[in-house]
Amino acid sequence: MIKNIIGNIDFAESLRGKKATFLIALSTTRTIQIDGITQAGIPGLIHLTPTLDIEFVCSGEIRCLDNIAQTPKGVPTPALMTRAVHILNPYSNIEILDLGMDTKPKLEYFECYDFEMKPSGSIDNGADIEAMDIFQKGVEFGKNYKCKDDYIILAESVPAGTTTATATGQALGYDCKDKFSSSFKNVPNDIKEITIAKALENIKDKKDLFERVGQVADNMLIFNAGFILGCSYNQTKIVLAGGTQMAAVLLLVNSIVNYMGGKLDSKNLALCTTKWVAEDKNSDIKGLLEMLDFNINAYYADFDFSLSTHPALKLYDQGEAKEGVGAGASLMYGFLNGLSKDKIIKQMEEFLG
Amino acid sequence: MIKNIIGNIDFAESLRGKKATFLIALSTTRTIQIDGITQAGIPGLIHLTPTLDIEFVCSGEIRCLDNIAQTPKGVPTPALMTRAVHILNPYSNIEILDLGMDTKPKLEYFECYDFEMKPSGSIDNGADIEAMDIFQKGVEFGKNYKCKDDYIILAESVPAGTTTATATGQALGYDCKDKFSSSFKNVPNDIKEITIAKALENIKDKKDLFERVGQVADNMLIFNAGFILGCSYNQTKIVLAGGTQMAAVLLLVNSIVNYMGGKLDSKNLALCTTKWVAEDKNSDIKGLLEMLDFNINAYYADFDFSLSTHPALKLYDQGEAKEGVGAGASLMYGFLNGLSKDKIIKQMEEFLG
Repeated sequence: MIKNIIGNIDFAESLRGKKATFLIALSTTRTIQIDGITQAGIPGLIHLTPTLDIEFVCSGEIRCLDNIAQTPKGVPTPALMTRAVHILNPYSNIEILDLGMDTKPKLEYFECYDFEMKPSGSIDNGADIEAMDIFQKGVEFGKNYKCKDDYIILAESVPAGTTTATATGQALGYDCKDKFSSSFKNVPNDIKEITIAKALENIKDKKDLFERVGQVADNMLIFNAGFILGCSYNQTKIVLAGGTQMAAVLLLVNSIVNYMGGKLDSKNLALCTTKWVAEDKNSDIKGLLEMLDFNINAYYADFDFSLSTHPALKLYDQGEAKEGVGAGASLMYGFLNGLSKDKIIKQMEEFLG
Repeated sequence: MIKNIIGNIDFAESLRGKKATFLIALSTTRTIQIDGITQAGIPGLIHLTPTLDIEFVCSGEIRCLDNIAQTPKGVPTPALMTRAVHILNPYSNIEILDLGMDTKPKLEYFECYDFEMKPSGSIDNGADIEAMDIFQKGVEFGKNYKCKDDYIILAESVPAGTTTATATGQALGYDCKDKFSSSFKNVPNDIKEITIAKALENIKDKKDLFERVGQVADNMLIFNAGFILGCSYNQTKIVLAGGTQMAAVLLLVNSIVNYMGGKLDSKNLALCTTKWVAEDKNSDIKGLLEMLDFNINAYYADFDFSLSTHPALKLYDQGEAKEGVGAGASLMYGFLNGLSKDKIIKQMEEFLG
């Protein structure tokens, strides 16, 4: 039920029966204000998506709004998968990385690390991120982070995040233009392409890696790259919980390591995503991972809604939404601890009533 | 499946996936000798109830008698719920606080702290408890107690305990006469009221808080109040596992804190009980908790026997027995670790054959 994208199954299997901390990087980018660029949330309120996602995962409730985030087509947030697994086979710890949200989640008792960042700018005008500063915050935090469990599942919720991921991959010089996925089934390539073209045009005279990335990325991509490098000092095991956005984090790690003339020991690092990303015909996560100079084990959870009759969930199988809020790695976590597809689907259907 | 009585769900949710120590305060009071005051056990052998309860929770066996404790109407002890959860999703540690039992449980290998107390007297003649001494023992023990898990579930088994709890609440000056629950469906108010009236009459000239409580309470109420205050020094998280008896512990904590001119940081403290207590029409646990000067999160496990066909279990749904031996918080512990109602019921039915 866990399948390989690249590498072999052993890293995942070695985590069977082990407990994980769910660590989630939450951030907003003003890129969401470009009309039609994302469907990851409620139109006009997409800046709330990361906030609503983590409220739901932690408490089962939506507090900063009266309903769960869903796309205009009615696809419910992938946070439902994460919450379902957390109910059936709980994470021991959920911790929040506030990397610049518009609205803080209304949660008590959950550890929320505040890195004093503001939402990044819209990349068509320059994201205006102090990239070196944010990267260093990530490294420091990773170096000092004491995982209370056997490993970390590092997730994200960043609307319009595949656009910033694509721009970042290209800004770093990878030949990756058509390899990134989207929350849309019918990808609005025009809007996305124009936005990315503008973003890249803005940095055409910049040479410095961090200067370039600071104009086209988002806070999550840069912080997580630092965090991964920080954690590599103390051998903490990390599963990157996401699709092509997390692949972009790895491309950034790769570029930074090369830029600094170092070498990454990636044996404690893996990526896990959903089947919808792994099998997506409009993107190529495997191709992205093959560009890395280090080896990586990458997986997907062999999970879909073929056993469900719920129309909103069926939309996933048609290619909408695909991934986010650590859904793919959460499904893996469930499978590695004895949960069945059937049980997870039933729990999700219960949420939707 | 976990519902709020007061406060919000976050404290409970933050314990999802975490491991608990089940700590149980066991004590007898001679108040049980008043004819018809309690149905928490076998007539004539009610003093054995705490002993039998913990033998069953720890070992699955009844050793000081040939059968499990049940009411004359055939309601089996709530210890069955605690044991069922302990089998399906075990506590990491069960530890026993011997606060004056008539008969010690026949158990090896389980930590049993002996505080050298004798069963308290019958409150109609004066309970004759050295309240300050017992309170201080609780404080000392709490201060020095090293929880081996993420949190403590603090339970009790004290027959006739709702009578002593009601008397204690009133002796402390709270307007709470009709707010305490009972193990009976049809509460024997006459006997209970006469007993409490006598108890309060005995202390009408006493002014000192500890002197008053020493005549009308039971060892568990006083010790646990001290234990909670002791634990507050080292930020140990405690879930009080019980209904209105545990609310009485909190009223006592509240009065002692006020009496000493202090202030309690209650953020690491919560209460969890059963649905039968939370929805009981003859008592008002929410009303009791609202009398506290500090905030408290209180919950109930949304669990009943509607899915069962066993006649003895069905009696719970009719209002008999209701709570005890940490049943409500144990159900919460099960739910927070992926157990379903159905699975717990099946396990209980297996006990009953």
